[in-house]
Amino acid sequence: MPDGRLLIGNKRYSSWSMRGWLAVHLAGLDVEEVLIPFVRSEGVGATPAIQAATPAGLVPYLEHRGARVWESLAICEYCAEQAPGLWPGDPAARAVARSIAAEMATGFRGLRQAMWFIIGRDFSGLGRTPAALADIARIEAIWADCLAAHGGPFLFGPRFGLADAMYAPVVGRFLAWQPEVSATTRAYMDAVRAHPLVARWYAEALAEPASWLLASYETPPAG
Amino acid sequence: MPDGRLLIGNKRYSSWSMRGWLAVHLAGLDVEEVLIPFVRSEGVGATPAIQAATPAGLVPYLEHRGARVWESLAICEYCAEQAPGLWPGDPAARAVARSIAAEMATGFRGLRQAMWFIIGRDFSGLGRTPAALADIARIEAIWADCLAAHGGPFLFGPRFGLADAMYAPVVGRFLAWQPEVSATTRAYMDAVRAHPLVARWYAEALAEPASWLLASYETPPAG
Ligand SMILES: N[C@@H](CCC(=O)N[C@@H](CS)C(=O)NCC(=O)O)C(=O)O
Ligand SMILES: N[C@@H](CCC(=O)N[C@@H](CS)C(=O)NCC(=O)O)C(=O)O
Repeated sequence: MPDGRLLIGNKRYSSWSMRGWLAVHLAGLDVEEVLIPFVRSEGVGATPAIQAATPAGLVPYLEHRGARVWESLAICEYCAEQAPGLWPGDPAARAVARSIAAEMATGFRGLRQAMWFIIGRDFSGLGRTPAALADIARIEAIWADCLAAHGGPFLFGPRFGLADAMYAPVVGRFLAWQPEVSATTRAYMDAVRAHPLVARWYAEALAEPASWLLASYETPPAG
Repeated sequence: MPDGRLLIGNKRYSSWSMRGWLAVHLAGLDVEEVLIPFVRSEGVGATPAIQAATPAGLVPYLEHRGARVWESLAICEYCAEQAPGLWPGDPAARAVARSIAAEMATGFRGLRQAMWFIIGRDFSGLGRTPAALADIARIEAIWADCLAAHGGPFLFGPRFGLADAMYAPVVGRFLAWQPEVSATTRAYMDAVRAHPLVARWYAEALAEPASWLLASYETPPAG
């Protein structure tokens, strides 16, 4: 019997689900994975089954030993309480890790709108709006600072942690849309993509049935 | 010598600053308060002095004993590490507190756009867009659930904590814009408004110089 369940959306499309899923797996929680494919029909902006099954109408959503946790950042904090070492041990580094995790959770709308999360498509060169490029510059600065301070290959050193989990879907966007990035950024992208949990998420995303594909995500933007 | 400093914006306008300021005061950190008034001129969407002084170009921003913390949620977590009891002690309640705090930090854009944060103005009856009303319904449901589960007067019981700090500016919006709310919501608003730290923030907001007023916030929306 697992200790609960994690509700997620399509691995191909759901950047927030990926964050919660990575956190739960990093912490080694024993939960059943329940994937609810997104529905997007005329006038349906949200998936009825997700609305019905979650407190905020959004995935990821975790139920674990009687606790109910939604919002990817709250799931990260819950997982950090369950397993030591997912945030940096040094208090000042931990404060930065949480700051950049929250900056991701609340910001970068320019990037998120122009270069949506998708696995299995090549949208190289598209989506380069001024707002997206400004967000990418800030993200590259965050990564460069952390990698320089802690020596890489992950943001806070040798171990892939919650800050990396929060930025892993950004790596996914960069892989799909291929904005021009520095060599430092490229090395970090390679390290994240090669992490076993990220590799597993990609493999499972690519194995999703064709009936789950949604035209609104699969259609590249004009220009 | 204080242990650091907290950068904030106008108390009259800055909802995020209020969250960080409440967290820092709840934790009893000894930091200098540095208020940078917002600048909004033609084509200036962000205040140059805030851009220059903070990692993400946003307030609140905390420097404390060598740690640098930005984003209101990260400041909350930092403060929770400095002072016990700011999150609920029960793990399941703590998970909900963090979930609703993050839901506030990442969501409710309909409310935030239609009913901006302002102290000292009466915009009763305005701003009732469908998106704002949908967000208000969800917020009322969150508050009602927490108040019923923990007995009030604050979200997780007798003590004003970080979840209350995250929602205190929402109370401020409701006070300025006066959407129709339940008696339960009204009682919670009264409790938050009467908390000594909230009362102090309001008093200091109302004492800000007239030269800091910004037409874009002071002008009520049409309709
Ligand atoms: N702030 C939330 C965002 C979660 C979110 O937006 N989830 C999307 C999918 S990535 C969702 O559930 N949408 C409902 C739907 O598409 O039906 C978090 O951090 O978890
Ligand atoms: N996600 C951030 C939001 C902070 C934010 O948006 N701050 C606004 C003021 S409330 C700001 O600094 N704006 C810059 C400016 O107005 O010049 C947080 O949680 O702290």
